[in-house]
Amino acid sequence: MFSILSKTPNVLRHVCVSSNLSNISSPSSSTHIYYSTTSTTKRRKMAVLSAEERQQDLQPLLNEGWSVVENRDAIFKKFTFKDFNEAFGFMTRVGLKADKMDHHPEWFNVYNRVDITLSTHDCGGLSQKDVKLAKFIESVAK
Amino acid sequence: MFSILSKTPNVLRHVCVSSNLSNISSPSSSTHIYYSTTSTTKRRKMAVLSAEERQQDLQPLLNEGWSVVENRDAIFKKFTFKDFNEAFGFMTRVGLKADKMDHHPEWFNVYNRVDITLSTHDCGGLSQKDVKLAKFIESVAK
Amino acid sequence: MFSILSKTPNVLRHVCVSSNLSNISSPSSSTHIYYSTTSTTKRRKMAVLSAEERQQDLQPLLNEGWSVVENRDAIFKKFTFKDFNEAFGFMTRVGLKADKMDHHPEWFNVYNRVDITLSTHDCGGLSQKDVKLAKFIESVAK
Amino acid sequence: MFSILSKTPNVLRHVCVSSNLSNISSPSSSTHIYYSTTSTTKRRKMAVLSAEERQQDLQPLLNEGWSVVENRDAIFKKFTFKDFNEAFGFMTRVGLKADKMDHHPEWFNVYNRVDITLSTHDCGGLSQKDVKLAKFIESVAK
Repeated sequence: MFSILSKTPNVLRHVCVSSNLSNISSPSSSTHIYYSTTSTTKRRKMAVLSAEERQQDLQPLLNEGWSVVENRDAIFKKFTFKDFNEAFGFMTRVGLKADKMDHHPEWFNVYNRVDITLSTHDCGGLSQKDVKLAKFIESVAK
Repeated sequence: MFSILSKTPNVLRHVCVSSNLSNISSPSSSTHIYYSTTSTTKRRKMAVLSAEERQQDLQPLLNEGWSVVENRDAIFKKFTFKDFNEAFGFMTRVGLKADKMDHHPEWFNVYNRVDITLSTHDCGGLSQKDVKLAKFIESVAK
Repeated sequence: MFSILSKTPNVLRHVCVSSNLSNISSPSSSTHIYYSTTSTTKRRKMAVLSAEERQQDLQPLLNEGWSVVENRDAIFKKFTFKDFNEAFGFMTRVGLKADKMDHHPEWFNVYNRVDITLSTHDCGGLSQKDVKLAKFIESVAK
Repeated sequence: MFSILSKTPNVLRHVCVSSNLSNISSPSSSTHIYYSTTSTTKRRKMAVLSAEERQQDLQPLLNEGWSVVENRDAIFKKFTFKDFNEAFGFMTRVGLKADKMDHHPEWFNVYNRVDITLSTHDCGGLSQKDVKLAKFIESVAK
């Protein structure tokens, strides 16, 4: 099994194996694969982040103030702006990007405050979509 | 009473006596009036809703699906739209109105869902601003 | 012809031969195909509308108040809303859709008025993207 | 004079005499004052900029790239952003501010480009509202 996986990184990347499940017997099981059907006619495969990806892609976000949500494979950050005008301009930019990615944040706002939680619903955990959207959010918030 | 008030203008400014407190002797007392000082140089009178206003102005909103929040003088409603596009178009219109009124909602969004809580922070409870904003929200959501 | 084309690759990239031109000798010629390179890493074929498509897809839009722009293969419509709030809520929804399609309108706004011109820049004329965006615009404006 | 004014309230309401017109005998004349009646029930004084205000308030804007429109008392500037996302985030912030001020820009957008013309319609020329909105626009565009 591992030899197959190590030879087929592209396939592996698209399987949505929960990275904490160690005893998955069949890597080709269709139950591992999630086809998103929300708000798009094209189906896209999305996998939860591997341990390696968490180290490489998630750690920089944690360093920028994102934190891992308790009891859920998701990340969270609070943003504070000057006023509602600045907060909602930020939200509009993030909303445009999110809708383009078909990947929407869970967010709360009041006045100058925006609290954002990111997770990939289809996948049941953090995926590269969350990393990509969080990076975009950081670029806009700065 | 008036001598006390005249000696404590700063306290008075932040007092927002609930007009449904039964031991208020004079309904025309200036203690009913709240002057907001947030995000505007102009002071505006704002009082929590009286029992009469609750009957007259709040009840129609409750009939439209708003509910009173537990343990807090606030109202809440969940809105569901076709998709994020429709939800965020709605949020933009509500955001424009809210910023014009200097009265901002507490709201949560994910994809096509928008949960809104309204209360007047300055006042510590529901005021005519909440009634006005809720009416506007209803007009846009339809 | 081919010698000219082979000497002018940059021109060729912007040629978007109308598929109703009958004197194109080879229907499989790459000159029929336009690869957009703007704001997307994926290349998408986009051709100007054929005579048949104009009859079938454009006519319904003209019936809804869109008009053909003079001296340019583009369509235009003026929209009038109740106020800026309604106009900008509309613009936000169209903007979200446009950015998702990587196909942006030319539009003018003042207060409650939004004038929209649609054309496919890459293609130098009207394409199915304009039809799709115009249909979406109609659905939102109603 | 007063009898004339009292007989022509409708005319007076729309007169917005430029305060740099030399033949105005009395600088305190009520004819200098314009009461806007658009989109607000409150009347607000708004006059076209005086020569002194143009030197003091308009010149800094011209230094930042705004230009005076030909044949019209208005100012204009082109803004270029990275992409539509950045352009529309900017437009949302300007739109929020404009609606709060009851003073809306004339603007054109395509993709990453936003062309803005400012003038006070009620007044028929540049007023302090234009200066204020232009300053805000500059603060957001930076």
